[in-house]
Amino acid sequence: MVKKGSKEERDLVQLFWTKGFAAMRAPASGGATKRPLPDVLAGNSKRYLAIEVKTTSKELIYIDSSQINGLYEFCEIFGAEPYVGVKFKHTKWLFLNIELITKTRSQNYKVEKNLALEKGLDIDEIIGKDRQVKF
Amino acid sequence: MVKKGSKEERDLVQLFWTKGFAAMRAPASGGATKRPLPDVLAGNSKRYLAIEVKTTSKELIYIDSSQINGLYEFCEIFGAEPYVGVKFKHTKWLFLNIELITKTRSQNYKVEKNLALEKGLDIDEIIGKDRQVKF
Repeated sequence: MVKKGSKEERDLVQLFWTKGFAAMRAPASGGATKRPLPDVLAGNSKRYLAIEVKTTSKELIYIDSSQINGLYEFCEIFGAEPYVGVKFKHTKWLFLNIELITKTRSQNYKVEKNLALEKGLDIDEIIGKDRQVKF
Repeated sequence: MVKKGSKEERDLVQLFWTKGFAAMRAPASGGATKRPLPDVLAGNSKRYLAIEVKTTSKELIYIDSSQINGLYEFCEIFGAEPYVGVKFKHTKWLFLNIELITKTRSQNYKVEKNLALEKGLDIDEIIGKDRQVKF
């Protein structure tokens, strides 16, 4: 089962602050009119990152296509780079470009632990990379 | 008494979305390690706005200096323009540059309704202005 706990999100927010980013979680409830929000939003005056957070004790994480679509929509309007931030048991935070995430037959998404370990970027890599936001 | 209700913040968030900005409220609780967060954060890929929200049925709003300092700190790190967004009874949302807000003798801040009506910008003015964020 994928946990999407706010404790993990708070930990990630704190990690961003220690790396020189200001960061905040989305509120638990979006209000009556739902808008697509990332779990965590971080910026350092040059780069803006929007993160969909997934943590699990299993080897595989499934993500609803609606969440990925919402993340894209938010990022396009707000002006941020979309990432899925995953944390498996005994791994550090790993960040995946959406393009690297495989689709399931039902058109949702999945992230395997091995793929995340192989292709995922760590926090220093996503904050150090060249700016990718298109203006 | 100043109300700092989440209903008003949600209304403001929705207003930003209707104006082509992606926006979100800060979560109600900041977690164990408090970081300075604006009440509402909005972006449209070009401009990033961080708003401290104050609404009241009175003629005067007091703001703690710690909130203004926190707003500045967040904006400097994240890369956003700081505004105090005020709504008095029978007024629309008005946005004030921090510089326009007068200090009280106790080094806190206050916003009088008349000053807000005279000097405050409406939402179309703050989203239409030239970019002020320094990179």
